[in-house]
Amino acid sequence: MRVVRMRTRGVENDVKKKIRAIQYGVGPIGASIARLMREKQAIEIIGAIDTDPAKVGRDLGEVVGATDAPWGVSVSADAQEVLEQNADVVIHSTSSSLAKVMDQLLMCLKAESSVVSTCEELSYPFRTHPELAAKLDAAAKESGVALVGTGVNPGFVMDKLVVTLAAVSQRIEHAKALRVVDASKRRLPLQKKIGAGMTVEEFRAQVKAGVIKHVGLPESVAMVADGLNLPVEQITETIEPKVATERVQTEYLTVEAGQAAGVHQIGRGLSKDGKELVYLELQMYVGAKDPADTITLTGHPNIRLVIPGGSHGDIATASVVVNSIPVILDAPAGLRTARDLPIGFFSPNARP
Amino acid sequence: MRVVRMRTRGVENDVKKKIRAIQYGVGPIGASIARLMREKQAIEIIGAIDTDPAKVGRDLGEVVGATDAPWGVSVSADAQEVLEQNADVVIHSTSSSLAKVMDQLLMCLKAESSVVSTCEELSYPFRTHPELAAKLDAAAKESGVALVGTGVNPGFVMDKLVVTLAAVSQRIEHAKALRVVDASKRRLPLQKKIGAGMTVEEFRAQVKAGVIKHVGLPESVAMVADGLNLPVEQITETIEPKVATERVQTEYLTVEAGQAAGVHQIGRGLSKDGKELVYLELQMYVGAKDPADTITLTGHPNIRLVIPGGSHGDIATASVVVNSIPVILDAPAGLRTARDLPIGFFSPNARP
Repeated sequence: MRVVRMRTRGVENDVKKKIRAIQYGVGPIGASIARLMREKQAIEIIGAIDTDPAKVGRDLGEVVGATDAPWGVSVSADAQEVLEQNADVVIHSTSSSLAKVMDQLLMCLKAESSVVSTCEELSYPFRTHPELAAKLDAAAKESGVALVGTGVNPGFVMDKLVVTLAAVSQRIEHAKALRVVDASKRRLPLQKKIGAGMTVEEFRAQVKAGVIKHVGLPESVAMVADGLNLPVEQITETIEPKVATERVQTEYLTVEAGQAAGVHQIGRGLSKDGKELVYLELQMYVGAKDPADTITLTGHPNIRLVIPGGSHGDIATASVVVNSIPVILDAPAGLRTARDLPIGFFSPNARP
Repeated sequence: MRVVRMRTRGVENDVKKKIRAIQYGVGPIGASIARLMREKQAIEIIGAIDTDPAKVGRDLGEVVGATDAPWGVSVSADAQEVLEQNADVVIHSTSSSLAKVMDQLLMCLKAESSVVSTCEELSYPFRTHPELAAKLDAAAKESGVALVGTGVNPGFVMDKLVVTLAAVSQRIEHAKALRVVDASKRRLPLQKKIGAGMTVEEFRAQVKAGVIKHVGLPESVAMVADGLNLPVEQITETIEPKVATERVQTEYLTVEAGQAAGVHQIGRGLSKDGKELVYLELQMYVGAKDPADTITLTGHPNIRLVIPGGSHGDIATASVVVNSIPVILDAPAGLRTARDLPIGFFSPNARP
C-alpha cells in the first residue's frame, strides 16, 4: 500500500504521485462520488466499472454528467481487467447487500487496492455477518490493504458521531439518535424507494418483499453499542410507513393524505433482560416538517447534539466516502469501520 | 508500550493486565481526572505527583475527596521516583504553558510512559511552539510511546469536533465555532480566573499581566486550519471583558452591572491577504444567557451543529482526557493530537 502524505501540521510534505482511484459502480451515488473525486487535486481516476449496457464503453465524465467531460476514462463491464491496474483505492458503490458484493470486494482486495464502499451492511458487519467480516478482514490483511463501508448513514450521523460525542461523557446509560429527512427535494428513485405515494397496503407489501427499506440501522446500533461498551445482546428493527396527514407535492410525484409519505424505521439495542440501551430512529419522508439529526446521550452528563436541517443524504454520503480515502490509505491493513478512522476533510487543494 | 485490547466488535478479548496510570498534578482538574480513572475497571492508579505541601504524603483518594478513600496511593513530590515505576500512561495536569512543562513531559517519556496532558499549548503546538513539538515528538519516538495534549477546549468542541463534522463537507470556505459558557455554576478559581467581579480596568490590567486568559485558542485555530486544509498564514487573538449588564450573584461572588463578568476571546485564522478563514469565539462569563457550543461550516453544503447548553468544562475535560487513554496507548509513537485520534468512550466496564 502506498501511503500518501498530505499537508499536515503546517508542514508541506512533498508527495510524489496522485492517489490512483477506480470507481466501481456508477449509479446515482457512484456518479456523485466520481464527480467529487474529480475535484480533488490529489486524486486521479484511472478506471470505472459498471455493467449497465447504457453506460459501458462511454466516457465516465459523460456518464456522470460532468461539465468538464470527457475525462478520458471509459466505463467498462470487465471488473477484473479494470482492477488489474492495481489502483491505490477502489470506491465501491453497487449494492446494500454484503452477501451480494462479497465477490466484488474480494476481487478489489486481491488486486491490492484499498476499498471504501457504500455497502451499508459492510459498515459494521461483526454482529450481522461475522463470517463475511472475518473473510474480508483476512483477505485485506493478506494483501496489505484496508477496507471500510461508510457513508452518512450508516457511517456518520447515527453511529460515528454518536461515538465521537461520547468523548465528553463519564458514564453512558442510553444512546439515542433521531434522523428526520425531508425527501421532497431528493431524487425520484429515492422517493420511490421509501414508498412515497403508495397506499399503506402497498407499502406493507413492499416492505415484506424487501423492496422498501433503509439498510444499515442494525449495523449502526452495533457500532454504537460496541463503541460505548453497552451490553447489547439483541438488536431489533421495525419498518412502518410514515402516513401523510395532508397532500404533498414534489417535483416528481404527489402523495395524498392517508398515503405513505416515506419510511419510519426504528432500530433498538437491548440488554439480555430486554432493557433498551440504544435507540436509533429514522424518519425519511416527503414533506417532513423539521428535518434534523439529533443525538441524545443519557448518563453523566446528559448531552444533546443537533444538526438543524440535518445532513443532506446524497451530498453527505459522497463527502464521507471521499473524505475517507486518505484515512483508509493510512489505516492498518484489514477490515476497518468508521469507528476506527479519525475522519476529517479531504481538501480539493490537498497537494497531490 | 503495552497495548490493551478492549472489548471491540462484539468480540470479548482477554486482557491480562490493568492499565497502570500515574496522576501528575492533583489540582482541581487533576483531582477530577483521578476520580474518573478510579471508576474504570481497566485502570489501576499506581502513583501521584504534586509539589503542594498540603498534599504531599497524603493518600490520593483523600486529597481528591473520594468517597472510597483511602486508595492506598500517596501523593509524592518526587516525580522521578514515581515515574520510575514505568506506568503505561501518565495523566499530566500541571500548567497551560508548554515551555513550563517541557521537563516534566520529557521525564515521563524517558520513563517510557505514554502521556495524556491537559496542557493547552500541547494540544496543537506545531505552529505556536514548533521546536518544542519536534523535541517531544523525537523523545516519544525514541521511547516508543505517544503523547497528546487534550481536553474539551482545546481538544474537542472547538477543533476535533469541527474537523470531524467536516466529514460531511465537499468544500469548505470558512469554519466558525462559538462557545458560550455560563461560569455561574463553576468553581471559584475559575470565576476568578476569568475576572468575574473585577472592574473593566482591573480586568485589562490582569489581561496585560497574562493572568486572565483562556489558553488554547490559537492551537484550536491551527488544528482546524490544518484539518480543513485552509491556507491560514496568520493567527490572531483578542481578549476583552464581557461586561455585566445587570447584577449577577453566584455562590461565591457578586458581579455588579458594569463590572467584568468574564472573558470574551476571539481567535482568527487569516489567509496571506488577510481573509478570515477560521473564527473561534469563546464567551465564558457568569450569567451567560444561552450557553451552547455551535459550529458553522460555510461551503458545500453549509452545515451547523449545536450542543444546546454546551459541554460542561470540567466534567468534559476529565472525560476527554480519560477517554483518550485507550487511544493514546494504541497510537503510533510520537506526538499526536486530538485530530489524529479516533476518540470514543472508555467505558467504566471495559474489561481490564
